[in-house]
Amino acid sequence: MADVLAPVLAPVLALAQALVRCPSITPDDAGAQDVLAAALAGLGFTIHHLRFGGPPDGPVDNLVAVIGEGTPHFAFAGHTDVVPTGDRTGWSVDPFAGMIADGQLVGRGAADMKSAIAAMVEAARRHVARGANGRLSFIITGDEEGPAEHGTRPLLEWLEAHDLVPDACLVGEPTSLQTLGDMIKIGRRGSLNAWITVRGAQGHVAYPHRAMNPITGLITALAELKARELDTGTDWFQPSNLEVTDLGVGNPATNVIPALARARLNIRFNDLHTGAALEAWLREVVARHAPNSDIDVRISGEAFLTAPGALSSLVADAVTAVTGTTPELSTSGGTSDARFIRRLCPVVEFGLPGQSMHKIDEHAATADIEALAEVYDHVLQRVFANR
Amino acid sequence: MADVLAPVLAPVLALAQALVRCPSITPDDAGAQDVLAAALAGLGFTIHHLRFGGPPDGPVDNLVAVIGEGTPHFAFAGHTDVVPTGDRTGWSVDPFAGMIADGQLVGRGAADMKSAIAAMVEAARRHVARGANGRLSFIITGDEEGPAEHGTRPLLEWLEAHDLVPDACLVGEPTSLQTLGDMIKIGRRGSLNAWITVRGAQGHVAYPHRAMNPITGLITALAELKARELDTGTDWFQPSNLEVTDLGVGNPATNVIPALARARLNIRFNDLHTGAALEAWLREVVARHAPNSDIDVRISGEAFLTAPGALSSLVADAVTAVTGTTPELSTSGGTSDARFIRRLCPVVEFGLPGQSMHKIDEHAATADIEALAEVYDHVLQRVFANR
Ligand SMILES: [Zn+2]
Ligand SMILES: [Zn+2]
Repeated sequence: MADVLAPVLAPVLALAQALVRCPSITPDDAGAQDVLAAALAGLGFTIHHLRFGGPPDGPVDNLVAVIGEGTPHFAFAGHTDVVPTGDRTGWSVDPFAGMIADGQLVGRGAADMKSAIAAMVEAARRHVARGANGRLSFIITGDEEGPAEHGTRPLLEWLEAHDLVPDACLVGEPTSLQTLGDMIKIGRRGSLNAWITVRGAQGHVAYPHRAMNPITGLITALAELKARELDTGTDWFQPSNLEVTDLGVGNPATNVIPALARARLNIRFNDLHTGAALEAWLREVVARHAPNSDIDVRISGEAFLTAPGALSSLVADAVTAVTGTTPELSTSGGTSDARFIRRLCPVVEFGLPGQSMHKIDEHAATADIEALAEVYDHVLQRVFANR
Repeated sequence: MADVLAPVLAPVLALAQALVRCPSITPDDAGAQDVLAAALAGLGFTIHHLRFGGPPDGPVDNLVAVIGEGTPHFAFAGHTDVVPTGDRTGWSVDPFAGMIADGQLVGRGAADMKSAIAAMVEAARRHVARGANGRLSFIITGDEEGPAEHGTRPLLEWLEAHDLVPDACLVGEPTSLQTLGDMIKIGRRGSLNAWITVRGAQGHVAYPHRAMNPITGLITALAELKARELDTGTDWFQPSNLEVTDLGVGNPATNVIPALARARLNIRFNDLHTGAALEAWLREVVARHAPNSDIDVRISGEAFLTAPGALSSLVADAVTAVTGTTPELSTSGGTSDARFIRRLCPVVEFGLPGQSMHKIDEHAATADIEALAEVYDHVLQRVFANR
C-alpha cells in the first residue's frame, strides 16, 4: 500500500513517513539518520556523522549537516530518536508502518518529532532553491528521549571545536497545543529531583528517648522546604514550585519507631534560580532538621530563556503569516535539548501540536506537516532576507 | 519427672506449674481457670464463672472468687490467658510443660502472670488461716492479652451490679525490672493510634495547578502536630509524646504528583489529656491542612493514676519488708487492665521481673515466686490489720 501511495505524496510527507518507518527507539538509530543524510546530501549539504558514547546507553548516532558560508548562520535542531511504543496491542496500526490515512500520519515519532525534521528538510529545499547567502545547519541527535548524555551536549562541543556555532537556532519540538501555531517556547523551566534518606534508631514508641525517629526530622524538613515561596514568577516564567512526590517508611508495627524514612521531591524552577543554589538550600535545610541523612540531587536541566526579541518575533511572524494565529510565547512544560543550545546562541522552539506525543496512536495531521514546512520556510526567508 | 518433683514442691510453685501446663492462649482457657477455681474453692471462696462474648475473639472465660463480708474489701486482679509461644522450635523446653530446673519455672505465662496468680492464692491461704475480718476477692480474666473486650471491662460491670466493688485492688502484672521489688506501677500512660489518609488529584509535576498533591497537606499537618509540646510531664508522669510511626505513598514516577498519601502516628499521653480531646485535636489539625482526608483514631487506653498515698505506701512497705528494696513508683511502659479497674477504686500493680515476658523461654525464678507470695501476704496483713 505504501508503494502505491508514495508517488502521490508530497515530498515532506514521504520523508516523514520514511523516517517513521525506522524504529529508532533510543539509542538505536535504525537507519533514520541515513534517510535524513541522503535527503540533505541530495540538496548539497555536507554531512558529518558523529557517533558518541558506548554501552549501555550508546553508542548514539548524531548528525550535523551544513550548507553555505558566512552569515547569517541559522540552525535547525531536533532528534531522530523516539520513545518506546508502550503496549503495542493498544495501537490501531503498526507504530512503525508510517501509515497515512484520513489525513493523519500515525506512528511513533509522527508528532515528536520526525515530521518536523521532514518539514525542516522541505524548508531547506526551498531555501537552497532560492540561492540565498549565509549558512544553514542541521543539528540532529539520536539521544534526546534517553539520558541525553551522548547527544546534543557533545554535539555542541564539536560545533564549537569546528567553528560551526550558529547565530540562532530553531528546535522543532511539538510546542503547539490545540492547533498548529498557538504556542512557541522561548524557554523552559529547570527541573531537579532529590532523594532524601533519614536514618534513625528503631525502638518502642513507649520509650522514645531510647530511639530516634527519622520521620520527625524528615517531615519538619519537608514542611520547611514546602513553606518557602521560591519566587512569584517573572514576566516570562511561572513561579518556581516544589512538590514532594513520594514518602516511604514501610513500618507495619503501631508500637515501633522505625529506623529509616525516605522522601523524594521535584523542583521546577525559573531563571531566578540555579540547580546548584537549590541543591545547596535543600542540603542545608535537610541537614539542619535531620543531621543523620543522605540527599541525592539530580539536576535534569537548568532554566533558560531567550528573552522575547528579534528571534521570537521573527518566528512568531512566520507562524502568523502561515497559520493566521498569533502564538503565545511560553516557557511551560518539560525540558528539551534547547537547554543545551541556549548556552551558544538564542533558541526558540516551534513545532506540531503535541497532545499525542509519547502516547498510543501518536499522530500528526498531514495538513499540519505541510503547513509546518511552510512556517519553517517563512522563517528561513526572514532570517536570510534580514542580512 | 513432674510427678516425682511435685510432692517436694512448695504449694505456690505446684500451682504456678499447674497453671502453666494449661495452654491458655487467648481466648482459649484450656482449663486454667478450673485449676484456679479448685484451689480457691478449697480455701472456702465462692466461685463465679463468667463467660462473655462470642466468636471470633470469644467466648472468654472469666472468674470472680469472693470470701468474707464487709470491709475492708480488697481484691487481687490478673489474667490467666497468655500470648502465643512464637517460634516453638526456639524454646529450650516445651512452653506448656511447666518445667522447673535450676531454680527457674520456664514456660509461657511463667512471668506474665500465672506465677503471680499462684502467689495470690498462697497469700489468700495464709489470710484465710488468720481468720481476719473483711472481704477478699479475685478478679481474673482470660482476655487481657487479646482485645480485652470480653474480660475485665464487663467483669467490673458485673461486680457493680452485684455490689462487689472492692475498696482497693492489686494487679499482679510483672512490674519489676531487674530484681523483684524494684518497681511498682501506680498508673499508666494512655495510648492512641491514628491512621491518616489524604486524598489528592494525580498529575504531572510540571503542571501542579492541574493536580492536588496530598503529600503537602499531610506533611504540614504532621509538622504542626509534632511541633506541639503536649505538656512537660507531671510529678508522676513523663511528658506526653507523639511519634509518627509510618508514612506511605508508593509513587515510582519522579514526574508524577500522587493521588494518595498516608501516615500513622501514636500518642502516649499522661493524665493531663484524654483520648477524646487528643482525637479532636488531631482531627482539627488534619482537616485544616488536608480537608480531603480521613482519620481513623483508636484509643487503646486512657491514662490513669492512683496518686501516691495509702495504697502505694502500703504495697511499697510490704515489698521493702520482704525484699529489702525500696520500689520506684512508676507510670512507665504499656497498658494493663488496671486502666479499667481505676474507674472503680484505687489500684496499684506489682509483680515479678518482666524481662522475659512475651519472649522465647519466658521464665520466673522459683525464689521470686515464693517471695512474691510473701509480699502479697504482707499486703493482706497490712490491709486487714489497718481496719
Ligand atoms: Zn521530542
Ligand atoms: Zn500480663
